Amino acid sequence: MFFSVNRLIFIEEINKCNRIIDPKTPTPSLAGILLEVEADKVSLISSNTSMSIKTTIDMGSNDLLIKQTGTILIRGKYFLEILRRMDDEIINISSVEDNLVMLSGEKSEFSLNILNYTDYPSLAFREKGDNVNVNNIELKKSLNQTIISVNEWNQKIVLAGLNFSLDNSMFYITGTDGFRVSRKRTQILGDVPEKFETNIPHKSILEIIKLLPEKGECKIVSVDSHVTFIINNTIFQTIILEGQFPNVNAVFPTDFNTTLYVENKKFFKLISRADIPSEDNASTVVNLILNDDSIFIKSNIHQIGSFEEVFKEFEIKGLDEQNICFNSKYLIDSLRTFETKNIEINLIDSKKPIVISSSEDVNLSQIILPMFSN
Amino acid sequence: MFFSVNRLIFIEEINKCNRIIDPKTPTPSLAGILLEVEADKVSLISSNTSMSIKTTIDMGSNDLLIKQTGTILIRGKYFLEILRRMDDEIINISSVEDNLVMLSGEKSEFSLNILNYTDYPSLAFREKGDNVNVNNIELKKSLNQTIISVNEWNQKIVLAGLNFSLDNSMFYITGTDGFRVSRKRTQILGDVPEKFETNIPHKSILEIIKLLPEKGECKIVSVDSHVTFIINNTIFQTIILEGQFPNVNAVFPTDFNTTLYVENKKFFKLISRADIPSEDNASTVVNLILNDDSIFIKSNIHQIGSFEEVFKEFEIKGLDEQNICFNSKYLIDSLRTFETKNIEINLIDSKKPIVISSSEDVNLSQIILPMFSN
Repeated sequence: MFFSVNRLIFIEEINKCNRIIDPKTPTPSLAGILLEVEADKVSLISSNTSMSIKTTIDMGSNDLLIKQTGTILIRGKYFLEILRRMDDEIINISSVEDNLVMLSGEKSEFSLNILNYTDYPSLAFREKGDNVNVNNIELKKSLNQTIISVNEWNQKIVLAGLNFSLDNSMFYITGTDGFRVSRKRTQILGDVPEKFETNIPHKSILEIIKLLPEKGECKIVSVDSHVTFIINNTIFQTIILEGQFPNVNAVFPTDFNTTLYVENKKFFKLISRADIPSEDNASTVVNLILNDDSIFIKSNIHQIGSFEEVFKEFEIKGLDEQNICFNSKYLIDSLRTFETKNIEINLIDSKKPIVISSSEDVNLSQIILPMFSN
Repeated sequence: MFFSVNRLIFIEEINKCNRIIDPKTPTPSLAGILLEVEADKVSLISSNTSMSIKTTIDMGSNDLLIKQTGTILIRGKYFLEILRRMDDEIINISSVEDNLVMLSGEKSEFSLNILNYTDYPSLAFREKGDNVNVNNIELKKSLNQTIISVNEWNQKIVLAGLNFSLDNSMFYITGTDGFRVSRKRTQILGDVPEKFETNIPHKSILEIIKLLPEKGECKIVSVDSHVTFIINNTIFQTIILEGQFPNVNAVFPTDFNTTLYVENKKFFKLISRADIPSEDNASTVVNLILNDDSIFIKSNIHQIGSFEEVFKEFEIKGLDEQNICFNSKYLIDSLRTFETKNIEINLIDSKKPIVISSSEDVNLSQIILPMFSN
């Protein structure tokens, strides 16, 4: 095995593979990255119990020059550290003997021990099945906007990740922990499949967010108990969460008694002030009292103190009297997902969910269940 | 007690006090910041077992307006969090009842529980004694350049901090862990005292570095078992380390067989490459072999791999044959302290200390003991 490649590109691809490796894996070979050098490309593969990555560097660009094919299993962490310290634009990688790889630049030369590649499990990357194509930036944004409502450790397994589903030819991403729901509608590019419903674990979502670039589109393929994301030269495959995701449409209220129109930034700062820090980082209960032309925001943390502020910078539609309590952290998380200047806070009464939306971005909805105050 | 003050200035002074507070202090009152409001100034005081701070906000600037004097003991952490979330330029602080302080802006109002100030120990800040005045930036830079050789947990107590001393009307700061020495000479501004020798603990040095601003000068006062740093409106007092600091002058070699002149950045990158990461983050032994017009740098980490590079970008004075081993981390730390373009590496033989210096900054010296290779 002998090839030369652009150092920065090689760093980028190794980095993708390294991120999912579990350094404490009980299978020693899975601590490595499988480097497969074929006649016209170099593939890097890594895997843990729930995710696998295969990323390819193609001939023709990337300064890739293949002199001899072959397969080795490298220790990604050390490779990465060393590549980062090198100066060279192009580096040479060659296997010498069975257990040594040589990494060299113009003047410096590293010999590194490698693992036995014959121990590496054979991984199947599924690229065919029910699939949707979505825009990369849209997907990245949508995942960030919905993951806020997911509790990674939710005891109801199917809730410990995001739900992907179709409705009326639109692609929906939904997260909920039982106390709040985040929902985003996204355009499908190209063909709309007949069915597409799956639940992706929280950890996998975080990796996908890191993999998604600022340009291009992503193909999401669902086959049996796996979902594959094809993002340019990289294939990311994850297990799914089994179970029936709750029908959140049913909890989305549609008729509201009061809609408050506020500037997101100002309202966000107001709620941040009410979110008094507590000794044990617990949530703060915030009480919103609407009375005519004023919103009173009050909060209280045992042994620390209390907060009160009158807020008048809003427009209103509907009933001008409301009194509702909610978890400040949930509201703060929701407000952060809106990149719009203005938002709407839709209320029914003290016992019904609040819906936060924005007429500037109709595809995003955040629902929060109220708390009962004493 | 009732006053109003500029919010950002108040944040800055609370921040100074908060940093040294030990949240796990066995003395509950020391978890607080003592706020003393007098007719013409507000003082903030905090303390832990080894350091104390007193910082003063004066009338006339800082938007300070005192309406009623008094003393309270506040919980700095919550005060800071809340002040940061407020919008107002000016804030009002007033005590209401015995156990409550009101923090208010134009629209928002916080009530916070306070501690009992009568429990707070009486602290003496010593401002008179043997003293030297030094430039703030110079001092900050010197502390950063010398602290690298200090091991906070050194079993020989006197080495667990920096030594301040006088020699020939110059002020010396020295740190050593027994394997290396960092030494910086600094100008004294104004009068030179007859004697001045003290040892400041590592933790206190880190706090002083944070307190030192970019302008002005600092007065360092040594009295009995304490040293006080007077930095503008802030007095910082620390305990000292007892014991006799070793005479490092004795270990500083002066006659060298070889001097290598190198560009700091290039040599730094070379040694960083040789510093192969290891499984347990242990130090790497680097071997430097000088042979005529080439420097060979070699290193080897058990089970990971090895490194080799030839370096020719240097000038030389003296013997052109040397073979010496050293701890890569020590050399990297030393090279980082030089802000100069070029440095000199002075060698005697494989068993004598290396001295790193720069003709562009003659006040700084870094010594490293070599290692014996096998």
